[in-house]
Amino acid sequence: MTVPRLKLGIAGLGRGFMLLLPTLAAHPGIRLAAAADPRSEARRQFRADFDATTYTEVADLCADPDVEAVYVATPHQFHREHVELAAAHGKHVLVEKPMALSLEDCQAMIDAMRRAGRWLVVGHSHSFDAPYLRAREMIDSQDFGAVRMISALNYTDFLYRPRRPEELDTSQGGGVVFSQAAHQVDIVRLLGGGHVQSVRAATGSWDSARPTEGAYSALLTFDNGVFANMTYSGFAHFDSDEFCGWSGELGQSRDPDQYGAARARLAETQAPEEEAALKNARTYGAGLSLANSQPQGIAHNHFGFVLVSCDGADLRPMPHGVQVYAHTRRYLEPLSPPEIPRREVLDELVGAIRHGCRPTHTGEWGMATMEVCLAMLESARHDREVMLSHQASVPKAGML
Amino acid sequence: MTVPRLKLGIAGLGRGFMLLLPTLAAHPGIRLAAAADPRSEARRQFRADFDATTYTEVADLCADPDVEAVYVATPHQFHREHVELAAAHGKHVLVEKPMALSLEDCQAMIDAMRRAGRWLVVGHSHSFDAPYLRAREMIDSQDFGAVRMISALNYTDFLYRPRRPEELDTSQGGGVVFSQAAHQVDIVRLLGGGHVQSVRAATGSWDSARPTEGAYSALLTFDNGVFANMTYSGFAHFDSDEFCGWSGELGQSRDPDQYGAARARLAETQAPEEEAALKNARTYGAGLSLANSQPQGIAHNHFGFVLVSCDGADLRPMPHGVQVYAHTRRYLEPLSPPEIPRREVLDELVGAIRHGCRPTHTGEWGMATMEVCLAMLESARHDREVMLSHQASVPKAGML
Repeated sequence: MTVPRLKLGIAGLGRGFMLLLPTLAAHPGIRLAAAADPRSEARRQFRADFDATTYTEVADLCADPDVEAVYVATPHQFHREHVELAAAHGKHVLVEKPMALSLEDCQAMIDAMRRAGRWLVVGHSHSFDAPYLRAREMIDSQDFGAVRMISALNYTDFLYRPRRPEELDTSQGGGVVFSQAAHQVDIVRLLGGGHVQSVRAATGSWDSARPTEGAYSALLTFDNGVFANMTYSGFAHFDSDEFCGWSGELGQSRDPDQYGAARARLAETQAPEEEAALKNARTYGAGLSLANSQPQGIAHNHFGFVLVSCDGADLRPMPHGVQVYAHTRRYLEPLSPPEIPRREVLDELVGAIRHGCRPTHTGEWGMATMEVCLAMLESARHDREVMLSHQASVPKAGML
Repeated sequence: MTVPRLKLGIAGLGRGFMLLLPTLAAHPGIRLAAAADPRSEARRQFRADFDATTYTEVADLCADPDVEAVYVATPHQFHREHVELAAAHGKHVLVEKPMALSLEDCQAMIDAMRRAGRWLVVGHSHSFDAPYLRAREMIDSQDFGAVRMISALNYTDFLYRPRRPEELDTSQGGGVVFSQAAHQVDIVRLLGGGHVQSVRAATGSWDSARPTEGAYSALLTFDNGVFANMTYSGFAHFDSDEFCGWSGELGQSRDPDQYGAARARLAETQAPEEEAALKNARTYGAGLSLANSQPQGIAHNHFGFVLVSCDGADLRPMPHGVQVYAHTRRYLEPLSPPEIPRREVLDELVGAIRHGCRPTHTGEWGMATMEVCLAMLESARHDREVMLSHQASVPKAGML
């Protein structure tokens, strides 16, 4: 009995779509059925690449009877509206991180999907990366004792990559708390058990030309006694890929001698329009297509240095596996290189819809991650600890 | 004109003294005049090594007219009493970290020294290590812009090295907050400007056989807007010397293939007495002497991974210098290997007493560091942020 491919519609052919394109194109459980985007060149490219229908409006995509599920990869501030549209048409949804920009929006999305009786999965985030999922399994095996403390550091040039103005405006979902903490929090929650109790954070907005949070440090406590430090700088000159064997975020081989490239390129641009043009040059339909979306990755995706201190070992997810520092020996729990990068996110979506497997990254999970991100902003703004109340535990794997 | 050597008396010939012995023996501004210790074998060894007077009681050492300054290296809980004794006899004082176990004790020590009109220097702590001092000078040069964020991580097997029972009892000054945060806080305060505003911390006491804090993570905010993450594990299996070019805390060359040595050695001991005996085997007069105290160091001392994010560069103090990650290039600001390890602490003491140079690590400085350490314990115990009120800025270098 062959399980039919999931007919997926893409809402938004931007950066999120480009990053997932190699996965979407290669995943055996997916057929790209349609897409919506306001840019005609993107629509044209999609039709050429996939022989599929395209729409200008997400509403029309959601109404397409040939679409079973919608991947909502539109700008952050439109996630709620587009998820509600998909729900209203009875579609399953994969929504990009950050899930939304407020808890109210997250709750509305969960409610809409529940009313529709359809699946909601939130991703891709780096907590889908195989090394973190494997570390979680190792923790669940109880071979390494209780999780006690997590440390997560990531130093990148995120803020100096080409940006659209809205990406530098927190009120529109810009800045590293929405864009990057959404990854780091998801990872730390996955490894720590999910249920964060308190957040104390500080954020840095240090470049008036790029007026949004570009860095943060936070201390999280969990209801099970675990605590975690998360530190991120998108203003960084130091590059924490050094601590990941010079493997990049997407699993690509990094050249340690390439230094300062993002700032150097940006220094050549003068005006915001020029920068937006630079960004558009790497957009689908304008320079990029299926043909040149081939994965750069030779290792697994990652999100910087992560160390999970357990009673019996420290676990360090790495691009090629999980480095285990046990009492008497140190070894790599190896992972095969990814044949399809980021496939885990589509496995989770297809697994839920086609096989009734409980997803980890549900709406409730995504909302709990957003609650931490929003608490980080609030804690930093008001200089005080924030207590949480919408947290979710790591779901047990298995069938429903 | 020759400046006479400072006649120093040693109160306590324990581990602190052993760690400073290569420095004490080699420093051109110091003469070891006397020592006090309850252990006869230690006194005998001191007389043999230095042809100097020894006492059983610290009070008698302090009364010795041939002693100009006392190095108080007795167990933490006796620091106040011994500093007050030294002050009462008009001696200058170098007191080991942690300065004391309460702010009241710190204040009493400051007051006693002030009344006596003598110098009080608090150290050694790793904030005297040349790479941190050099990083502070580089920050003061204003070549790298404002300091914004600091990250400090240290993963060691501290808790599994041989310990006396009191070292595993927080009420007697045991645990890593008193012993190790005293270093890390001193470093982070030095680099961040000194004036901490708030502390939120969590501590871990995860091994009932060693019932004290063995790990912590803390978020500090400073009055100048700087924020810092400090994470330490003395339960660690992972070893952060990996991030310091496999150079150890004392500047010694580490062998990455030596793994798990502390736990393995400890596993062979059965009873606390056996462990104490193991510890005593590396004590002055019982196995150790001047002759075998030769510095292992070929690089500078360090305290794990430290990264200072400035507007113009990230500064990473390393055992061989300060690694600078600037906008367009990355380079090492090199430091000559130390001829005398840890000499900076005695330079500061001698500089103050003989040359009127303002010390950085005054009583007020040490008290401010202890306030942060105590706030970490309080924050962890009561699950809340603690605001500080006894902070001190980094003193400007120079003559008084």
